[in-house]
Amino acid sequence: MANTTGMANLNLTGDDGTVPTEDEVNPWEVHASSATGVDYDKLIKRFGSSPIDSALLSKFETTLGQPPHFLLRRGIVFSHRDMDQILALHSQGKPFFLYTGRGPSSEAMHMGHVIPFLFTKWLQEAFNVPLVIQMTDDEKFLWKDISLETARSYTTENAKDIIALGFDPERTFIFSDLDYIGSSPEFYRNMCRVQKAVTFNQAKGIFGFTESDCIGKISFPAIQAAPSFSSSFPHIFNSRSDIPCLIPCAIDQDPYFRMTRDVAPRIGCPKPALLHSTFFPALQGCQTKMSASDPNSSVFLTDTPKAVKDKINKYAFSGGGATVEEHKKNGGNCDIDVSYQYLRFFLDDDQRLEKILQDYSSGELLTGYLKKELIELLQAFLKSHQEKRKAVTDEVVKQFMTPRKLKFDY
Amino acid sequence: MANTTGMANLNLTGDDGTVPTEDEVNPWEVHASSATGVDYDKLIKRFGSSPIDSALLSKFETTLGQPPHFLLRRGIVFSHRDMDQILALHSQGKPFFLYTGRGPSSEAMHMGHVIPFLFTKWLQEAFNVPLVIQMTDDEKFLWKDISLETARSYTTENAKDIIALGFDPERTFIFSDLDYIGSSPEFYRNMCRVQKAVTFNQAKGIFGFTESDCIGKISFPAIQAAPSFSSSFPHIFNSRSDIPCLIPCAIDQDPYFRMTRDVAPRIGCPKPALLHSTFFPALQGCQTKMSASDPNSSVFLTDTPKAVKDKINKYAFSGGGATVEEHKKNGGNCDIDVSYQYLRFFLDDDQRLEKILQDYSSGELLTGYLKKELIELLQAFLKSHQEKRKAVTDEVVKQFMTPRKLKFDY
Repeated sequence: MANTTGMANLNLTGDDGTVPTEDEVNPWEVHASSATGVDYDKLIKRFGSSPIDSALLSKFETTLGQPPHFLLRRGIVFSHRDMDQILALHSQGKPFFLYTGRGPSSEAMHMGHVIPFLFTKWLQEAFNVPLVIQMTDDEKFLWKDISLETARSYTTENAKDIIALGFDPERTFIFSDLDYIGSSPEFYRNMCRVQKAVTFNQAKGIFGFTESDCIGKISFPAIQAAPSFSSSFPHIFNSRSDIPCLIPCAIDQDPYFRMTRDVAPRIGCPKPALLHSTFFPALQGCQTKMSASDPNSSVFLTDTPKAVKDKINKYAFSGGGATVEEHKKNGGNCDIDVSYQYLRFFLDDDQRLEKILQDYSSGELLTGYLKKELIELLQAFLKSHQEKRKAVTDEVVKQFMTPRKLKFDY
Repeated sequence: MANTTGMANLNLTGDDGTVPTEDEVNPWEVHASSATGVDYDKLIKRFGSSPIDSALLSKFETTLGQPPHFLLRRGIVFSHRDMDQILALHSQGKPFFLYTGRGPSSEAMHMGHVIPFLFTKWLQEAFNVPLVIQMTDDEKFLWKDISLETARSYTTENAKDIIALGFDPERTFIFSDLDYIGSSPEFYRNMCRVQKAVTFNQAKGIFGFTESDCIGKISFPAIQAAPSFSSSFPHIFNSRSDIPCLIPCAIDQDPYFRMTRDVAPRIGCPKPALLHSTFFPALQGCQTKMSASDPNSSVFLTDTPKAVKDKINKYAFSGGGATVEEHKKNGGNCDIDVSYQYLRFFLDDDQRLEKILQDYSSGELLTGYLKKELIELLQAFLKSHQEKRKAVTDEVVKQFMTPRKLKFDY
């Protein structure tokens, strides 16, 4: 996927330096028109998706017999398409599968990249369904000034991080476009079907392509569409083409799947359902321009405990008062405090998070405490992650990336 | 390939019904501005290729120790790019390979489709080199209102006809795009390399694409380019990327390879060399509009002896006089007589052809004689071809179409 987290290129201004009057959200560019960041309610209306409301959250709980994941409860996964139908299918014992992806743009993944995978892992375990993870190394080759070999090597490095998050090899297939497209006539056929159903004008309207874009970029959306169809994975789905798909992704990826949903019935396939998440903020705050090339804009999975401490202390935007006195008097603003926002993404204890919210808002807790809490949480996560990643050998990667039957029968 | 013979869509008028002032020659449309057909000399200048002159024909003879094929001697294969370099390479004992193709647009191939393969077969035998034959069933799916399954089935039927022409399985690899792209990561990688190097604007300029064309068409040229590179066939060339390629094709396919030659050095591959042939005329004459859907516009490989006789007698445009008396007096015009033109493509006996030319031009021979000569020749060819085709089992097709090492070592 271009950028499942929507981390890169969050700009306050448009390409021409002017302030746009509407949020711009597409796979390669996220422009917020307001200093408070992207207006997600407006985005739901504009994209024509549905908000995740309390009724849907109840259905989740009823269907699964367990509370929905905290990212759902906290409104970080905030929008959907046809999730109610997926829940209904599951209640009837009917199958579906999960599809998510990653655009391997560098060797190192950061905490923002991890969120959709942690959420996807929860979905997979809660529903007990197959998961396909597309590594769009071909896309990264087309969009960036890197070689095919480099793009492919990023896939392996990123796959190790993804596997280290604890996915089950019996339920998970990870694939590199550069390898799998050349190993699966069925996948290529679905690419062709989608490519026949979308004109340049349509792709231009959806993705903003120009006539100066290379022909590879122009036809790429078909490649991100193809994994939505179970027939692209005959080894997993016993060549069935009717298994519905649920795609958890950041909202910036929605254009790909609006297109896919438009095409699906025309090529005789079910429309994929979607779960959309908000963007993960940069350390410098929701409203600052992010730079993928700036190592200080996020915490990376390779960061040392000291680097984590230094970055958070130095860069994490504070919602606190200008002085301790002022903070105690007026309280802190959790809406813009990056440490609090990060805790919302990573601290699974609702009660503790709520207490932090109250105590910080009241002014009782200083920003330093939030930072300390976050530093400890991230240091623990990274220590454990880095150990698990060491155990992910090339052999393990190969196991996940070999086209094969999973533990499900169709 | 779109249409290696340039048979379809030879129009005298442009799409808008006006008479164009210049010949239009591209893979999907051939418009002749003059009633005498396409001006090939002008085309050479416009395309920037080189005429095949007597000096090059002599080099052929010196290099091969045998006269060049009659299609070369007769100027039917009339233009080239870098053929002198291929001859020089061969003289030095250095390797090259042949690449040609077929767009399988229907089950039945006609005599026009056979010409480039007969010529390619001669090249393969004369130079003793590997040959790859691309069946662009994906292209036919994208351009025509047919299913993938139908397009793929045309590949098998057409491959049987091609194999029946006598290709050597130890030197020939035939591949369906729909199968091979999904079986060869190396081929897909070369597609990506080309797709990154060509913009929509460039593709539009070369192929006349519009914004209403589907994204599959727009990126297709990369698929026809990829077989020009030996690295697309690692099983044949031991993963070498430096083996040069020679492409025999009808001149209408040149746009694909102008693009390929432009891209090749930028992706570190040798430019393919080319041999261009003229178009094979419809029975109704060089200047008539051809229709692929009109079974009377050509002789098909499936035609019965009676059908051949009836078609030639009824439809083959005559260059003879209006009456026997007039014909005897003024002679016939071989330039426009379709029976004579067909004999030029199929009768390998130079002396006999020359005698027919003289006797018909002088008025001694009537059109009926030329038709009889052509009918007998085609009936004999088809009888033999149809017998050979029966011997081409699915097993034989599979042999030719399995990615494998050929008899050459690299």
